Amino acid sequence: MSDNNNRPSAKEQQPLVIFMPSGRRGRVAPGQSLLDVARQMGVEIESICGGRLTCGKCKVRIEEGDFQKHGIQSTAKHLSPANEEEQWLLERINGTDCRLSCSAYVYGDMLVSVPEESRAQKQVIRKSATERVIDIAPAIRKVYVEVDQAELGEHRGDWGRLQAALREQWQLEDLTVDLQVLRRLQPVLRQGKWAVTVTLWHDREVIDVQPGYVEGIYGLAVDIGSTTVAGHLCDLRTGEILATESTMNPQVTYGEDLMSRVSYAMMHQDGLEKMHKAIIDTLNRLAVSAAKQADIQARDIHEAVLVGNTTMVHILLDINPTELGGAPFALANRDAMDIKARELKLRLHPGAYVHVLPSEAGHVGADNVAVLIAEEPHRQDENLLVVDVGTNAEIVLGNKEWMYSASSPTGPAFEGAQIAYGVRATPGAIERVRIDPETKEARFRVIGDERWSDEWRLGSGASPDEQPKHLAVGICGSGIIEVVAEMYLTGILWPDGRFNTTIESDRIQWDGRKGSYILATGEESANHEPILVTQDDVRNIQLAKAALYAGAKLLMNRANIKAVDRIILAGAFGSFIDPKYAMVLGLIPDCDLEKVYAVGNAAGDGARIALLNKDKRREAQEIAYWVRYIETAVDPDFQTEFVNAIHLPNKEDSFPHLAGILPEVSVAENGSPARGERRRRLRTKVIKTEE
Amino acid sequence: MSDNNNRPSAKEQQPLVIFMPSGRRGRVAPGQSLLDVARQMGVEIESICGGRLTCGKCKVRIEEGDFQKHGIQSTAKHLSPANEEEQWLLERINGTDCRLSCSAYVYGDMLVSVPEESRAQKQVIRKSATERVIDIAPAIRKVYVEVDQAELGEHRGDWGRLQAALREQWQLEDLTVDLQVLRRLQPVLRQGKWAVTVTLWHDREVIDVQPGYVEGIYGLAVDIGSTTVAGHLCDLRTGEILATESTMNPQVTYGEDLMSRVSYAMMHQDGLEKMHKAIIDTLNRLAVSAAKQADIQARDIHEAVLVGNTTMVHILLDINPTELGGAPFALANRDAMDIKARELKLRLHPGAYVHVLPSEAGHVGADNVAVLIAEEPHRQDENLLVVDVGTNAEIVLGNKEWMYSASSPTGPAFEGAQIAYGVRATPGAIERVRIDPETKEARFRVIGDERWSDEWRLGSGASPDEQPKHLAVGICGSGIIEVVAEMYLTGILWPDGRFNTTIESDRIQWDGRKGSYILATGEESANHEPILVTQDDVRNIQLAKAALYAGAKLLMNRANIKAVDRIILAGAFGSFIDPKYAMVLGLIPDCDLEKVYAVGNAAGDGARIALLNKDKRREAQEIAYWVRYIETAVDPDFQTEFVNAIHLPNKEDSFPHLAGILPEVSVAENGSPARGERRRRLRTKVIKTEE
Repeated sequence: MSDNNNRPSAKEQQPLVIFMPSGRRGRVAPGQSLLDVARQMGVEIESICGGRLTCGKCKVRIEEGDFQKHGIQSTAKHLSPANEEEQWLLERINGTDCRLSCSAYVYGDMLVSVPEESRAQKQVIRKSATERVIDIAPAIRKVYVEVDQAELGEHRGDWGRLQAALREQWQLEDLTVDLQVLRRLQPVLRQGKWAVTVTLWHDREVIDVQPGYVEGIYGLAVDIGSTTVAGHLCDLRTGEILATESTMNPQVTYGEDLMSRVSYAMMHQDGLEKMHKAIIDTLNRLAVSAAKQADIQARDIHEAVLVGNTTMVHILLDINPTELGGAPFALANRDAMDIKARELKLRLHPGAYVHVLPSEAGHVGADNVAVLIAEEPHRQDENLLVVDVGTNAEIVLGNKEWMYSASSPTGPAFEGAQIAYGVRATPGAIERVRIDPETKEARFRVIGDERWSDEWRLGSGASPDEQPKHLAVGICGSGIIEVVAEMYLTGILWPDGRFNTTIESDRIQWDGRKGSYILATGEESANHEPILVTQDDVRNIQLAKAALYAGAKLLMNRANIKAVDRIILAGAFGSFIDPKYAMVLGLIPDCDLEKVYAVGNAAGDGARIALLNKDKRREAQEIAYWVRYIETAVDPDFQTEFVNAIHLPNKEDSFPHLAGILPEVSVAENGSPARGERRRRLRTKVIKTEE
Repeated sequence: MSDNNNRPSAKEQQPLVIFMPSGRRGRVAPGQSLLDVARQMGVEIESICGGRLTCGKCKVRIEEGDFQKHGIQSTAKHLSPANEEEQWLLERINGTDCRLSCSAYVYGDMLVSVPEESRAQKQVIRKSATERVIDIAPAIRKVYVEVDQAELGEHRGDWGRLQAALREQWQLEDLTVDLQVLRRLQPVLRQGKWAVTVTLWHDREVIDVQPGYVEGIYGLAVDIGSTTVAGHLCDLRTGEILATESTMNPQVTYGEDLMSRVSYAMMHQDGLEKMHKAIIDTLNRLAVSAAKQADIQARDIHEAVLVGNTTMVHILLDINPTELGGAPFALANRDAMDIKARELKLRLHPGAYVHVLPSEAGHVGADNVAVLIAEEPHRQDENLLVVDVGTNAEIVLGNKEWMYSASSPTGPAFEGAQIAYGVRATPGAIERVRIDPETKEARFRVIGDERWSDEWRLGSGASPDEQPKHLAVGICGSGIIEVVAEMYLTGILWPDGRFNTTIESDRIQWDGRKGSYILATGEESANHEPILVTQDDVRNIQLAKAALYAGAKLLMNRANIKAVDRIILAGAFGSFIDPKYAMVLGLIPDCDLEKVYAVGNAAGDGARIALLNKDKRREAQEIAYWVRYIETAVDPDFQTEFVNAIHLPNKEDSFPHLAGILPEVSVAENGSPARGERRRRLRTKVIKTEE
């Protein structure tokens, strides 16, 4: 491998190496491996085997070499030739046009191209309405080491020898070892002929050791929702999502909403135990099923990141959530935690850790912190409002200067509860609604059928194709938003939420002073009874949206801003509602509709991001402390804002972006039309004043 | 609390405080508590409650105050008066002649006497042949804290508030919390009305939290021997031993000696599991029974220190000991370990840790390191030899400059195995022997009877009082040492170990060329058959003692010393043998007999010392690395020394301290008497040359 250059003086000149695409360049001492040269220049090339020609991860392409030196045609090798082992490995990985940087030694100038897959600092793009690049820097990694054989007269022990090998070959110091690993260490070392692949957690603890060279490192990110548990199984080397699984949270048996689960834990001796076991069993099943999809085993999963609201996290950790059920809503622990999965009886790898993201306050949990990690309001120049709608809505308003959060007691109306004909989002549930402004006739779409109801053909004369796949069974969350919004836009409702008594339509029924709107006729309905939207339904939606809006307004007041620049709707509910209708009803404050996005399960995405990148965990901990949480329950401003937000929006006050959309009615102080003849007191106790 | 001194200028002079018995003195700013003043001067006064007048541990006696200042009679209070709370507490702890240093504020000169029980740095004296002072500085401690109540609008969580309280009141930073503690934290804080006693492990992890002020912190030190498991339950505040328990190691069922247990683990699928479970169950029973003796619960034990030979430690940790069964005798782990007790299914406190001391090499384990901690050869000016006799003997030779260790394969002869009439040390076992030099008649003592056999009266004519409590059932380890030594001293044996053919006695029987000695007659024996010492018994003792001696000699050669200054016999066996007989047989090298001590279970003492003092654990780790282990199995010198040591000692060569004790026979090169008529070759394969 010596340089045969005719001019020895040239040999003294250090070779120039340029790495692409980073463009980093420098002169280096000759005879070093390209891998070492790259590291010196801060170019991160992946390597699992540490230069033992086993992993093939460090391949690079030599794009150009200065084969002419000092004007004289040179036969010099700029790079040592590939030996047999390298050639064999390059063929095996389809890389014969490449070199392995660990065994290619530099002797002359060259331009080296590092392909994407060889870069140590990989990235993935989060596919969502708000695309984001995620750097792959997980908390766990695998390294391959060759360990000194045990010899008579040398007493370090197998763990001592493994530590020495990790220190020498990977510069890893002060490692601890899981007892489970220690139990298998001796046979594994011998089975691997003193070559093993070690899995490290935070470069601090050895959590697994496998004989020989082994690839593949996997993690699970799970968002434990009150209703749904959703997980992503990820390849932690590439960042790829290998499987996505979601399942019902079986705790629903013990209570639909959080408060009823807290009550269940309070009222039953074994309540906590049952709910804890239910979620652990579910996570175990989810892990098995996701692993199966990805063609691995659940015990190949070496880490999990779990998020959930505070009650879910308490129950997950087998901590009684009773204190969350009443003021002052004290958390057992706000901080992030790392716990051995086996301690929770999670059947991942026996050495696996579970990382639980931190919470913000008694009612804003790790799931919201995950949303922040995914949506990054704390990195924005603009004022970003993030709304995660559920039984409790978590609201965050912030930018890179400040951030506020709050939890708003919206109640379950948005989920179809407290609605006369409300149902969960199941096939046949009405999810989209349009009302003709002139005739007040409705058409709708149900879940499970792409067509609008006015395209259906009903009755025995219709062919199966023409008939709807599902007749209407009720109204789900997004449907109730749309129908109430459409009723308002078409003048069926007054701004104060009462039915407009001046409209004459067969669609409107009256029971004394209370109106109802026939959304689906008996013919269109699965049980042949018409599906109605009642005055009480409208009231409940008003109360829910007022709570949400008041929360957002409270934060805007605290931040002393008049308008937000962007709004993100997180969570499943947010994905199904049309931003226009959400704003027409006043769920969210005024904003350019083009700047209102639904991002789906941002909490799950945040969990995945924290799984792929350990630095994001530190960031999560920081923002969990940094965000200023406003307790709506005791804030007098919240009550005021709530009362002010009961009415439906009108362009005159705070919704300039709805100009041309909102109905052309001017509104008196109590919310009924100024021209209106019925100046009756609105029948809810939250109304402040009567004129 | 102001000073009423007539001369204000005196007030400006800082009071002089002298602490006794340390004699530390200094002038201090007035108005500080005596506790703070003491700390500033490096006088450690105990305090659990941190100055809240709860624990009463910081009491001091004011011996003298300079009540005359500047020649003028002063009515100044040199110390703030005791308030009601302090007075009440002082009465309760019978300390009305004392003050509590946390609530006595200094305003004038004084001499303060800190009683032994108030000193933070307590000590206990190890009661043993080698008395040693043990500083009490355990790895765990209890502190009392008052925690901020949870309040609306404050989101630290209960653990965050507890951390803050520990930081402010005890300067404890970067604490972690056991999940088990987190699970109980909220109810405990409320039950204690926001005052709790926290148990800390290494000031790093919170392992327990109890409501209110709670005293008492306990630890368990256990030496897991192959045959016997012995434990001390200690009060970790005072260092006191509250209970001592010992029990059989139930693994004996799976093999008497270590190698047969290693084989059992190799040959049986569930061998390791069974033996592991057996020792865990035993430790659990031992903990319960020791706790009961001390009137506490096993779950009040917050830490345990465990030691044992390497095989015992592997099995304890559920690590297969197979590798210890053959060269190169690789340990899974040489280092000390801290493991949650519950991970081993030890039912101590759920947050408790187990500390396992480090090992030295494949055959010298944590029990030997414990012996070193207890006997401290590494702190001696003299050359100290420590011999722990068992199936394997561990031998350490060292001083403060250097230290060597070895393991010698003595075999089980010293434990009564491989001896024709050998038995374990049970009632009726012969443990002491004397032979009349003239008549060659024997008298002996059995375990369970204080009288010598020549004081017994046998037969129906004897009263029950006159009859022995137990007839002889066999010869135990110490008995075999004494009888062989006495046979040698009385000329029955030649120095080469053969029976002296020139002696005529009814006590000696001949089977061809092999003699036997009748130690107990049929009358004296429980089964009416005489109890004999055979030529093979003598040979087996010779082999065992040669192994032991050769090990010691090997280390002396390595250290390049001719003689040792002191010898310590550790272990139960060492306690029962008479140093004189041990030296007469040549188990140990020559030494002033006054400087040979038996110290009993030094391994158990070492475990107790490591339990009481965490610094000793660091020292253990250091000496485990520092000691130079000599592998006898492959050392050619060992073979030579072994062969040289087969004969019984004679004063001509290397036992000057036995002058006047050894028989007056000169010895030819092959070990038989020079004047002897039977120059036969000694029938063991280890004999080197025939003349």
